[in-house]
Amino acid sequence: MDIVIPLFDDFEPLDAIGPYQVLGYLPGATVRFVAAGAKGAVADSIGGMRLDVPTRYTEVDSCDVLLLPGGHGTRPLMGDAEFLDWLRRMHGTTRYTASVCTGALLLGAAGLLQGLAVTTHWAAAGELPAHGATYVPERVVRRDRIVTAAGISAGIDMALHLVALLADETTARAIQLHAEYDPRPPFDSGSWAKASPAVRERIRQLG
Amino acid sequence: MDIVIPLFDDFEPLDAIGPYQVLGYLPGATVRFVAAGAKGAVADSIGGMRLDVPTRYTEVDSCDVLLLPGGHGTRPLMGDAEFLDWLRRMHGTTRYTASVCTGALLLGAAGLLQGLAVTTHWAAAGELPAHGATYVPERVVRRDRIVTAAGISAGIDMALHLVALLADETTARAIQLHAEYDPRPPFDSGSWAKASPAVRERIRQLG
Repeated sequence: MDIVIPLFDDFEPLDAIGPYQVLGYLPGATVRFVAAGAKGAVADSIGGMRLDVPTRYTEVDSCDVLLLPGGHGTRPLMGDAEFLDWLRRMHGTTRYTASVCTGALLLGAAGLLQGLAVTTHWAAAGELPAHGATYVPERVVRRDRIVTAAGISAGIDMALHLVALLADETTARAIQLHAEYDPRPPFDSGSWAKASPAVRERIRQLG
Repeated sequence: MDIVIPLFDDFEPLDAIGPYQVLGYLPGATVRFVAAGAKGAVADSIGGMRLDVPTRYTEVDSCDVLLLPGGHGTRPLMGDAEFLDWLRRMHGTTRYTASVCTGALLLGAAGLLQGLAVTTHWAAAGELPAHGATYVPERVVRRDRIVTAAGISAGIDMALHLVALLADETTARAIQLHAEYDPRPPFDSGSWAKASPAVRERIRQLG
């Protein structure tokens, strides 16, 4: 089982590492990062993390699961015809093609979301119609072989769904136990609907 | 605000990257990784991720928050007298000294948990008494300046607590909204108490 996660400069770190943590413990699976730009160092959107990614996407012809993280770095890639063509070809080989956060916009730019109701980061919901898709405010949305997750942390939930699909529910539950994923957020402010006006104002200052 | 996360070979990826995602958006803060061994490439416990960490821990004399991830790589470090001495000295400079998962065992080996009731990964709970500490089966436990989190994914919850302590609750809620941290695990198997016998058996096969 070959699971491929393309990385690019300014990727959102948890978008990629949340699913990597979960899928990395799937027995028989290998999760590997591939560089969507030049191979070598790839920097995240916060700016404190540099990953060494020794494989370029063009070196990969097929995989079982393709998983696209989001982040500001999706923007230039949405205009990269060679990368989008690769996404379409890879999708023809996968069991599941997945996205976290604004990774959905890459699937959209590749034309893979036409006519589908999917999810993405709440702040990017309005961009889906330009790609022929509509937004569903759910945590994880599966449409046949395409699985999309909401923003950033939602990739953890999605990856557990994928483990259940790729292996079985007992394995997914065991990986959840290993990661001690029994979340207890100290606040209840994880969606736009739940956020107070003060929180909505504060988020503009986070940069 | 200087937040330091030591990394070492065989660190558990989400232990470090979950808090990094949250604390990295704290206005005015810088989160940096430092190498607990030689500087340069550091590999995670799953084996698919190599980070370039250009600073060695010995180059850091103080910080506002010290945050220790866990993973198998904590084992050799628990016998590294120079590193443990550095932990003690750093703790003398911090506002908060924190751990995720088996990172607590490093704090314990440094003698910082004597007489405290703290948390760690459920599978490591029995190792705390050797360090003069007792286990509390809670997600996040704060004892004055020492804050411990349960296994792997619990670092996300802990980091939101830390943001509320370091800044304010509105900022913590805004970062939660940014990360769309409104968790919806597809299963309810994230703690030992909730796991079925079949799940407890399966986890032994995950490696």
